[in-house]
Amino acid sequence: VSDKRYLILAEGKALDPHYGKTARGVILYGPHPVSALVDSENAGADVEGIPVVASVEDGLAVEPRANTALVGVALAGGRLPAEWRVLLRAVLEGGLDLESGMHELLSEDPELADLARRHGAEIRDLRKPPADLSVSSGANLLQEATVVLTVGSDCAIGKKSVAIELDREARGRGLRSVFVPTGQTGIAIAGWGIAVDAVVADFLAGAAERLVVEGARRGDLLFVEGQGSIVHPQFSGVALGLYHGSAPHLLVLCHMAGATEIDGCPGHPIPPLPELVGLHEALALPARPARVAAIALNTHRLGDTEARRAIDEAEEETGLPADDPVRFGPVRLLDAVLQRFPSGIRTG
Amino acid sequence: VSDKRYLILAEGKALDPHYGKTARGVILYGPHPVSALVDSENAGADVEGIPVVASVEDGLAVEPRANTALVGVALAGGRLPAEWRVLLRAVLEGGLDLESGMHELLSEDPELADLARRHGAEIRDLRKPPADLSVSSGANLLQEATVVLTVGSDCAIGKKSVAIELDREARGRGLRSVFVPTGQTGIAIAGWGIAVDAVVADFLAGAAERLVVEGARRGDLLFVEGQGSIVHPQFSGVALGLYHGSAPHLLVLCHMAGATEIDGCPGHPIPPLPELVGLHEALALPARPARVAAIALNTHRLGDTEARRAIDEAEEETGLPADDPVRFGPVRLLDAVLQRFPSGIRTG
Repeated sequence: VSDKRYLILAEGKALDPHYGKTARGVILYGPHPVSALVDSENAGADVEGIPVVASVEDGLAVEPRANTALVGVALAGGRLPAEWRVLLRAVLEGGLDLESGMHELLSEDPELADLARRHGAEIRDLRKPPADLSVSSGANLLQEATVVLTVGSDCAIGKKSVAIELDREARGRGLRSVFVPTGQTGIAIAGWGIAVDAVVADFLAGAAERLVVEGARRGDLLFVEGQGSIVHPQFSGVALGLYHGSAPHLLVLCHMAGATEIDGCPGHPIPPLPELVGLHEALALPARPARVAAIALNTHRLGDTEARRAIDEAEEETGLPADDPVRFGPVRLLDAVLQRFPSGIRTG
Repeated sequence: VSDKRYLILAEGKALDPHYGKTARGVILYGPHPVSALVDSENAGADVEGIPVVASVEDGLAVEPRANTALVGVALAGGRLPAEWRVLLRAVLEGGLDLESGMHELLSEDPELADLARRHGAEIRDLRKPPADLSVSSGANLLQEATVVLTVGSDCAIGKKSVAIELDREARGRGLRSVFVPTGQTGIAIAGWGIAVDAVVADFLAGAAERLVVEGARRGDLLFVEGQGSIVHPQFSGVALGLYHGSAPHLLVLCHMAGATEIDGCPGHPIPPLPELVGLHEALALPARPARVAAIALNTHRLGDTEARRAIDEAEEETGLPADDPVRFGPVRLLDAVLQRFPSGIRTG
């Protein structure tokens, strides 16, 4: 659908910074317009200027009318709660295509697949991995592209947004830069990619390798979207597999200003930034000794003065350039990345 | 099958220490007898006293006759090469049950499933994950059992064997010890477990957590089979997910004496042992600060004198007790583990 227009399903979570991150990412960075978000609990509000409505019916009344529904919340473990089935039925009966980033493949759900067939709608599972994945081969180390991976101290703190902002700025400067999507939202935004958290665990590095090989076909400077965190009790495996498989030259370390504990995991503290920098660098493959080039601080919970102060503190603490690229622009962080390559990166 | 008797399919790999590790593990540690190994390239040899024969037909002529074929080699990426199909057809046509640890699920292969049906045989995929896995919940930190995880500097260096040896010795001392299998060979040996490398990457820690919860139902002292290595370019994600998900109190670090490079990955050096100890401890969850209790050195490539010297050197280098528990017995390493728990572990 070249004139794709989204209705985003975000029941209960339209305003939630964590679980609503797919919705926000697609609204802020996606190439396709969004007509409305459906969330009965938050109807009447708006997300980045897009109205929140109470039902699929209300959403379809918004003009111009959406033609594609997107499951815009990350469900824990990616499973389909019963109440969601009602929503999905409604959009398919309305003839909309359906895109989903859940682990549970909606295209393989008999009831939904049947509904889609009968109403001429298509179901696309953004998280469905390629069928022919395997272990990594070492091709990740043979690409000519420069690889920058956004890593982080937690999930849902901006690793994707930072990669997108840096990529935009780099392209603005005439570099052949590419955003490399590794999760369902990135895939919805960029139209390609692999959700590395949905692949067979043995093929994690293989999936990441395939993404940088594909990225290197598309450009010279790759900003790879990070996933999870090496210190996250639930998702560290994905983070490390992506790290080693994408074989980055540089890392940009993302952190939520002021956060001291993994979100949703009480009793799991986040180590101080200098420790996180050291741990990431110690884990780099000797064959590709990645270094942290900069700190990307998410300051959206702070006022302007506090945000500037938090950034200054991060710089002092780590000795690295720091900034909030979403709030204050990516210039400073991209400079920090590029100055690590004194001989330059090819320009388009 | 309570009187299970194996014919192990190990084409081309019966004598290979890496790819033949399932075969050796089942012969050495499994509860079920093995009649023969099938490997046309090595027919006439033996593996731990079990004869290697040229064909399935020859294997079925060995008395007592096997009733279950086991795919006894780890295929890279776990895929089924075409020549293997011939072997699998032969065992199913012979009426044998078939057990496989490949990623590719043989029970879902239409031709093989049909053959099995027609010959009254059963196909069991040891690596098939439970359907209801999800992300970890934190239950791993709430168990009363003491958890010991074998970690390593590489794949296929003895992490499973070390866990099995320690478990046997602990049970011999009257402790309620349990070997917790995390891969296809361990599952074939113990009759339960989850192959954590075959689960959806997001559920790695969830699978590991489920294993220690189940282990804690079975006993008080859990020896969890490690997988891969946090410094392995292909399999580090699995290693870290298993580490954090199993939430061990202690680690036993396994290493192939003299190895300086990841096997099969030229250009990927293995860090020195003290660095590996430090890296593992730095990666421990603050909520469960695992420490390395001992070094398990695989000395099978060395003569007795060199083996003793290598063990002494590992002790000097790391300041930790070291031994080769397969060669010299697990007493010393189990002592090292138990003395970390001065208040003791419950005895049966």
